[in-house]
Amino acid sequence: MRATFDPPTDAEAYRFCHRLRVRFAETDAMGVVHHAAYLPYLEEARVEYLRSVGHPFDLLRAEGWELPVAGVATRYLRPLFFDDVVDVHLVVARAAGAAFEIGYLLTVGAEPRATAVTRHGVVGPRGHPVRCPDWLVALASGPSSGDPEH
Amino acid sequence: MRATFDPPTDAEAYRFCHRLRVRFAETDAMGVVHHAAYLPYLEEARVEYLRSVGHPFDLLRAEGWELPVAGVATRYLRPLFFDDVVDVHLVVARAAGAAFEIGYLLTVGAEPRATAVTRHGVVGPRGHPVRCPDWLVALASGPSSGDPEH
Amino acid sequence: MRATFDPPTDAEAYRFCHRLRVRFAETDAMGVVHHAAYLPYLEEARVEYLRSVGHPFDLLRAEGWELPVAGVATRYLRPLFFDDVVDVHLVVARAAGAAFEIGYLLTVGAEPRATAVTRHGVVGPRGHPVRCPDWLVALASGPSSGDPEH
Amino acid sequence: MRATFDPPTDAEAYRFCHRLRVRFAETDAMGVVHHAAYLPYLEEARVEYLRSVGHPFDLLRAEGWELPVAGVATRYLRPLFFDDVVDVHLVVARAAGAAFEIGYLLTVGAEPRATAVTRHGVVGPRGHPVRCPDWLVALASGPSSGDPEH
Repeated sequence: MRATFDPPTDAEAYRFCHRLRVRFAETDAMGVVHHAAYLPYLEEARVEYLRSVGHPFDLLRAEGWELPVAGVATRYLRPLFFDDVVDVHLVVARAAGAAFEIGYLLTVGAEPRATAVTRHGVVGPRGHPVRCPDWLVALASGPSSGDPEH
Repeated sequence: MRATFDPPTDAEAYRFCHRLRVRFAETDAMGVVHHAAYLPYLEEARVEYLRSVGHPFDLLRAEGWELPVAGVATRYLRPLFFDDVVDVHLVVARAAGAAFEIGYLLTVGAEPRATAVTRHGVVGPRGHPVRCPDWLVALASGPSSGDPEH
Repeated sequence: MRATFDPPTDAEAYRFCHRLRVRFAETDAMGVVHHAAYLPYLEEARVEYLRSVGHPFDLLRAEGWELPVAGVATRYLRPLFFDDVVDVHLVVARAAGAAFEIGYLLTVGAEPRATAVTRHGVVGPRGHPVRCPDWLVALASGPSSGDPEH
Repeated sequence: MRATFDPPTDAEAYRFCHRLRVRFAETDAMGVVHHAAYLPYLEEARVEYLRSVGHPFDLLRAEGWELPVAGVATRYLRPLFFDDVVDVHLVVARAAGAAFEIGYLLTVGAEPRATAVTRHGVVGPRGHPVRCPDWLVALASGPSSGDPEH
């Protein structure tokens, strides 16, 4: 994807943090977390973020909404290992028209391990792409995501 | 990642094609292939490509080489479904210094479903990053990948 | 599960064979295929077997049938490694009432690596459990699966 | 596998409970959690149990111990769905010689969803199978696992 957002490695630039722990099943024969296993981490953090802002994803889905992933861009800075406790920092970086972007930073302790951006479409209850709902646009324009003084 | 290569949706721009079939386990509750499941498809195609050019990945690994994924960028154009027969087209787009990029196009029949780029580092037998070996540089400069007449 | 079928390690006891290759993504930090990754192998073999007997699973699903997995039992004999070419041998071991069992043997070359049994329910087009259709019962009673002279 | 332990559906029969939440990536096109996704749940619960009894798995691995899975048996009673909060109840059911078994019950609220047994070998720091260490044998013989009055 051609993401417009370049996720910083400074955790202060993000608005939400979800903690998870690396499963053994997510490692590979190089002894580190397989690069594909990061995508469910991002998804898990998205789901928890939507819950935290009052729009649980399972409720959205029950109402007929989907937020399909249109693109992902990851940058692996240092490996993750089995049993690492990972903080997935997240910010809605952009929401305009029928698409939005979320930026992510994965840290262990204070150390950046990876960054990522996911780009999403919005499919409404009638099964067609629709504009981002207002609450989603509002998430992208809050003080902490855009405020340079944050 | 900030990929330098923008993978085209024209299969003629690629140099290798690996065919695979979607597993049921790779689908999700939206009824399509989960976006994370594409990354192992890319990896499987890379492994077959390396075999086809005489550098099987298991042999490389036995010699101490690793080609760790430094970044991935995907663009999902249309969904993949259970049992789809997917052609993963591939080209080494760039190999310079201690990094290289591979571009991918996923098609079903003639229809583009997704594109992707993976960026890789090169770790040599001594466990340190090293320059791309000559055979890898040669893969990036062949006639069919850069030749506009192809 | 309490499987009634004890899958033998002799490939001659099976009626179908599907070949696949281990993906790097399926390995774990012990350097072998993760034990959970075997289940999609079994599923892939089931799907190919159903296709081979004229009942493709995607067609069954389009007609409203599901064959949900009610239980799995695996026995790991020797590890599988990245890039191994695995033969998944399969036999419908039992089909009675609204349930059936499939037995599996995984080999690399002639060497047994694992055995497994999956037990399935049958859900018909109306969304309720139903008796095994005749074609499925017939698969369980063919000469090669039960014939001691095979 | 031929498990000797038949995991009950009564949570009181287990000694440890680990809570996790279903990821969207773990669902499949039937709209439920894919049957293979349960195995990493069991593993995650095992890892947390070992931590809780003072034998963290990453420390065991650093010392050269492995507890390879020799067999798994699962019974799926009712589906798990996206976002379900799952309690994985666990008990070391048997530890004798160079093998041990763990039983599991998965519940959502008070409702049983699945049971499972994993059978493990023990590989010691020299890379060979060894007898279960004393602390592991002790886990299998505690009052709550075998006490009928519990």
